[in-house]
Amino acid sequence: MFPVLVVHGGAGHIPNERAELSLAGVRAAVRGGYAILQGQGSAMDAVVEAVTLLENNPLYNAGCGSVLNAKGEVEMDAMVMDGTDLSSGAVSAVRRVANPIQLARLVMEKTSHLCLTGDGASQFARAMGVPDVSEESLITEYARMRWKKNIAPDANPVECQMGKMGTVGAVAVDARGNIACATSTGGMLNKMEGRVGDTACIGCGGYADNKVGAVSPTGHGEAIMKVTLARLILFHMEQGCSAEVAADKALAYMKERVGGLGGVVVVDPQGGWAARFSSLQMSWAAAQNNTLHYGLYSDENFTQNIEDPH
Amino acid sequence: MFPVLVVHGGAGHIPNERAELSLAGVRAAVRGGYAILQGQGSAMDAVVEAVTLLENNPLYNAGCGSVLNAKGEVEMDAMVMDGTDLSSGAVSAVRRVANPIQLARLVMEKTSHLCLTGDGASQFARAMGVPDVSEESLITEYARMRWKKNIAPDANPVECQMGKMGTVGAVAVDARGNIACATSTGGMLNKMEGRVGDTACIGCGGYADNKVGAVSPTGHGEAIMKVTLARLILFHMEQGCSAEVAADKALAYMKERVGGLGGVVVVDPQGGWAARFSSLQMSWAAAQNNTLHYGLYSDENFTQNIEDPH
Repeated sequence: MFPVLVVHGGAGHIPNERAELSLAGVRAAVRGGYAILQGQGSAMDAVVEAVTLLENNPLYNAGCGSVLNAKGEVEMDAMVMDGTDLSSGAVSAVRRVANPIQLARLVMEKTSHLCLTGDGASQFARAMGVPDVSEESLITEYARMRWKKNIAPDANPVECQMGKMGTVGAVAVDARGNIACATSTGGMLNKMEGRVGDTACIGCGGYADNKVGAVSPTGHGEAIMKVTLARLILFHMEQGCSAEVAADKALAYMKERVGGLGGVVVVDPQGGWAARFSSLQMSWAAAQNNTLHYGLYSDENFTQNIEDPH
Repeated sequence: MFPVLVVHGGAGHIPNERAELSLAGVRAAVRGGYAILQGQGSAMDAVVEAVTLLENNPLYNAGCGSVLNAKGEVEMDAMVMDGTDLSSGAVSAVRRVANPIQLARLVMEKTSHLCLTGDGASQFARAMGVPDVSEESLITEYARMRWKKNIAPDANPVECQMGKMGTVGAVAVDARGNIACATSTGGMLNKMEGRVGDTACIGCGGYADNKVGAVSPTGHGEAIMKVTLARLILFHMEQGCSAEVAADKALAYMKERVGGLGGVVVVDPQGGWAARFSSLQMSWAAAQNNTLHYGLYSDENFTQNIEDPH
């Protein structure tokens, strides 16, 4: 049942005119990551590749396309975790890097720490030879438009809510049975400078353990943190729940206990997988046995051959 | 069995000449917090008071007395969590505030976020009227001496290891049965600028839930993060383990799976409590039924009347 890769492009309310593009983007990201798995690449390589593709796609709230904070600036969070030995790397409130997910991986591989924040993360990026990109190169017209709308006195709360979602992420099991996760985000629209969400917080915005599985969440970051969503789902799986049941149980708990909506992609060590959400929509795609699965609304599971280029 | 308050002054290897002072400090912190609980104060008020007293005591690695990062500067992490509704607040890599724990509480109470980092946290502190203190006022001669020793070519690894520990924390159940935790730290000696440890990460450096209990850990931050130590202990308690058994089980797992040592203080909703550690020492103190308990080496549990001033 493995290799398997599942990605998401964010939970929330995706405007109609962006829905098709959002699905095309997650399919492309899954194809990119799955090609690595088919070539005997590692789960870590695959999730980082898939998330890099989503960061580079201006449609998603990660890397280029990130939402803007209260000052109209981009500050990003990202994390990776390797289920082999529970090693992990994260960056929080990092600026002016094109691919925070790759920087998070460097934190894991090149330091004795698990998380670097703000200026320290930027200094580390420079020391690693990661190019400094301009703030402008990360900001899309759409992101700026939504930021302006959101600070307007007549701001529409639905528009604001949409801005809270759109994190990207991936989970995978490779041919050797190793498991990894990766999550990246621009955070929430109009956030305070220095706000760190779930994505940089191990156990909340991601967790991977070869013995149990992996989770990458998206949704209302503060709610995800309060229930340590990723780790909670894996605890349910340790108690015998399937990936799907564990995800639904934890999402229902998050809604009931702290009033938060979100979604997750999950894999287990046998290659079982799930893409579940309590929000109206979540764009997701999965690849297994040369079949590509994808969906946007609950209970959707469209399939096509992985070779189909569209 | 409640109110009850348990505090720690850090796990690790405490030099003999500091052992008595370290025990006197945790006893004083417990007295301060317990007086609030006896006056019908909240668990949150009590843990913040106890941790504030420990931050203000130059003996501990939190607030004044924090260890220095690789550049010889002080960057601190802190978090609080309220078990009533799972609300939480944290600051990471914050500079020039005397009491990061109080700033973490302000993040919880005055923002819609759970964590602020670096410059954003400093700006928030100023907006809240929290005084900016000088870097020098947070640095003790002892901290500077150890930093210098540690960067010397002949640095002693035992001395370095000691520098990794010394976080302070508290957990409490108040007279109404509400539960809270608080943790504060200067992090690890010689850490990279911008390093964020377990203390700012919900589920790792602390967790509180009225339905299950609360945990405040100390020890090797990166190991604590890999196993999400605080939440892990509470999961074991949800499965029926006592606070003590859950703590020992999780600490043994952390040692075996990721090679990390540490310690925790734990309370449960019935007022049961534990202070457990896998490190050589942890200075801790607890108060319940007007009795003060304290210890430094495993299986120590000295008691005295809470009114005894020493």
